[in-house]
Amino acid sequence: MGVEQRAVPDRATRQRQAIMAAAADVFTRNGYVGATTDEIAALAAVSKQTVYKMYGDKQKLFAEVILEMTLGTVERLASTVTLLERSTDAQVALRAVAEDWLRGLLSADVLRLRRLVIAEADRFPAVGGAWFERGFDRAVVILGESLQEMAGRGLLRPLTDPRRAAYQFTGLVMYQPMNQAMFAGTESLPSARELKRIAHAAVEVFLAAYGPTTA
Amino acid sequence: MGVEQRAVPDRATRQRQAIMAAAADVFTRNGYVGATTDEIAALAAVSKQTVYKMYGDKQKLFAEVILEMTLGTVERLASTVTLLERSTDAQVALRAVAEDWLRGLLSADVLRLRRLVIAEADRFPAVGGAWFERGFDRAVVILGESLQEMAGRGLLRPLTDPRRAAYQFTGLVMYQPMNQAMFAGTESLPSARELKRIAHAAVEVFLAAYGPTTA
Repeated sequence: MGVEQRAVPDRATRQRQAIMAAAADVFTRNGYVGATTDEIAALAAVSKQTVYKMYGDKQKLFAEVILEMTLGTVERLASTVTLLERSTDAQVALRAVAEDWLRGLLSADVLRLRRLVIAEADRFPAVGGAWFERGFDRAVVILGESLQEMAGRGLLRPLTDPRRAAYQFTGLVMYQPMNQAMFAGTESLPSARELKRIAHAAVEVFLAAYGPTTA
Repeated sequence: MGVEQRAVPDRATRQRQAIMAAAADVFTRNGYVGATTDEIAALAAVSKQTVYKMYGDKQKLFAEVILEMTLGTVERLASTVTLLERSTDAQVALRAVAEDWLRGLLSADVLRLRRLVIAEADRFPAVGGAWFERGFDRAVVILGESLQEMAGRGLLRPLTDPRRAAYQFTGLVMYQPMNQAMFAGTESLPSARELKRIAHAAVEVFLAAYGPTTA
């Protein structure tokens, strides 16, 4: 019976998952002020009391759901970065990472989440701070570690500051399309073909600076 | 008397300026939903009727004030870019532009404005679109023209896509500190010394790809 309980999530776990999914949906759709715990409870098919018992108030629920979505995004980005550590060709591997990060970070879910966190950064600096430190910066640090590993195998020049190199790579790849998506909306995103061109051009610049010296 | 009228702004112009300044303050402080035309009129020391007569409704006033602030920011950024066209040393000139753009774009006013536009991009796609096209993208296009001009004088390699090169330059410079400021708040910005390092490192990467070939 103990085994069965582990195999099937228990009632509390199921309720938690339902509340998280409902909160993600309601907060990204209505913003913090427009969201109500009533609507979240109804969508999760639990009582409002259950939401309060599990998460305290709306503010704590907000922080929790943003953090969970942040960690999910980092996990997804980091899994692609491992491609670099199995690579033998820096250009091929970096292009794959650039294209994957573009796809991942320009998805409708991530864009809505980013907008929400930025919109509420003044009201909830701790939420924005956690998104930056445990999400954004964390993903870049992981990328930097893989770049460092590539440098160790002679695929890149030795890096004095892997985190900076990773930020530069990400900036080359993401700056234009991410800002276009943030301001002008998802419909105005560059085409898939143009995104590929952006990714390849970014890798070209990055390798001009960090590729192995051929001398 | 005609001359005097041109020298001193007339009553309508003064009122317009007062309304714009008040609206910028109230919208960036309270957000779109939290702002009222009552508060804006009071701060501008005009009647609510005057606000409506000059700008229509709150929504039109919002679009107008964002556009005015956007154009002001572009003008400020573009004025620095002219440094490039008088330059004889690409590294020196690009470092100056990078440091100036960091200062300009990380100012508290611009950050508050960016947050506001991003927060309201779903509700007012036209406002976000105008910010992107007439602000963000416009400044980058102007930078690209100056890079092209430098290439024409042999200070950079010939550029096949000056706008792309300008986005890459801006991404190398701005990506880390801008995101840090957007998410984690102004207090968490890198120090002035660190910003300078970011600027110089960005120029180094940019010139590795676009600097004149020394061969």
